[in-house]
Amino acid sequence: MGGSLGMALKRAHPDIEIRGFDADPSALDGALGRGAITHRADDIVAAVTGAEVVVVAVPVDRAPDVMARVADRVPADAVVTDVGSAKAMVVKHGRELFGDRFVGGHPMAGSERHGIEAAEADLYDGVWWIVTPTTETSAAAYTVVTEMVTAVGAKPVALEPEMHDALVARLSHLPQLVASALVDVAAASGDKEALLGLAGPGFRDVTRIAASNPDLWVAIVRANQGAVLDAIGGLRSRLAEVESDIA
Amino acid sequence: MGGSLGMALKRAHPDIEIRGFDADPSALDGALGRGAITHRADDIVAAVTGAEVVVVAVPVDRAPDVMARVADRVPADAVVTDVGSAKAMVVKHGRELFGDRFVGGHPMAGSERHGIEAAEADLYDGVWWIVTPTTETSAAAYTVVTEMVTAVGAKPVALEPEMHDALVARLSHLPQLVASALVDVAAASGDKEALLGLAGPGFRDVTRIAASNPDLWVAIVRANQGAVLDAIGGLRSRLAEVESDIA
Repeated sequence: MGGSLGMALKRAHPDIEIRGFDADPSALDGALGRGAITHRADDIVAAVTGAEVVVVAVPVDRAPDVMARVADRVPADAVVTDVGSAKAMVVKHGRELFGDRFVGGHPMAGSERHGIEAAEADLYDGVWWIVTPTTETSAAAYTVVTEMVTAVGAKPVALEPEMHDALVARLSHLPQLVASALVDVAAASGDKEALLGLAGPGFRDVTRIAASNPDLWVAIVRANQGAVLDAIGGLRSRLAEVESDIA
Repeated sequence: MGGSLGMALKRAHPDIEIRGFDADPSALDGALGRGAITHRADDIVAAVTGAEVVVVAVPVDRAPDVMARVADRVPADAVVTDVGSAKAMVVKHGRELFGDRFVGGHPMAGSERHGIEAAEADLYDGVWWIVTPTTETSAAAYTVVTEMVTAVGAKPVALEPEMHDALVARLSHLPQLVASALVDVAAASGDKEALLGLAGPGFRDVTRIAASNPDLWVAIVRANQGAVLDAIGGLRSRLAEVESDIA
């Protein structure tokens, strides 16, 4: 997410300065090599020092800690946003740390691939980018974030954080869990590789996202637990109806 | 399925004679126009008269009736096969009508599109084609069918009818029902079009097959009811575990 954003920003504004930091030095090398950042920061605090806009692009459950670590060094007039898949929890922490200058964001893009090698400058072209201002968000900060979203080719749409979380639980988190569960069920009795080899294109489409990074998904589900449980309950009820109809 | 098979057979054997019949005259015109058949039969009995191989390509729940209608006119040495998505029920009727000359088949290919306009000569290239001989099937009939499968580019694999049905319930029929259920759940509270417009590529992949022809799927589920119910039960149990783990 962060790598693609850097590449897309560079595409829109060739002279932009993008300082990046990643705990993994090779990811940082890759980001510099692919043009996702223009400067390699020595640490996370150096990355935000002097910034006009700070984008937090980390597994969503780590966003509060990462924001807390840089809060003292983010310039007082900088706008802070993120790209996490759950919003209510992140927005709560963002507001506590950055007040009216924090605006949550979530691009509805991505793939089962991740890491700087998978970054693409056109990842956000034409996709929705949900922005989650609250009644306290400054209009100027909101404008900065939506301008960034538009610059990378995405379409901003505003939702309340809680509505976002309920929506993505059903549009993203539930399908992810179900894709994995379908693979589990298919492989429950027999030789997993042989069975999956017989699958047609429909099964492969439905379960493709089951190949996603499990650590990221643990983080996402943890950060959006209540809405995800509601969504699973909704699907189980619907399946019970289908089962009854068929019987 | 039938249209693509005709086109693929013609590709492999340009001089082949393929007589086709469809209850819909425009489908038959389309089949002739696209080269899926070489001769238009006036009725279903004319289509099988003199045939060496008869392929039943109809919604799976209608296969028993269609086979019964042509049984008297299928030459005594002809091999009969089908392409239906459920096998135990079809094989039972096929054996009763055609004895050791019936061999069930099911290509693991297809898409959410259907009809002669969607037919493709390369639909079966490289895909698995499950063939379901029984202990009574003649070796010669089995060979004819696997040769046809190979000629159209597919890879034959033999399974018992019941094992096939349990497998496709989990690899195909359950994912189909779940794709539709996920759309139902996503659209349960709100403006369906607006919500689905916000969905990312993951949701679209998982739910793409929900656009399939519902009539065909009613037929498939009806023809494979027991195995489908087992598969739904398996998924509901798995989802209950996932729900408990998350909570």
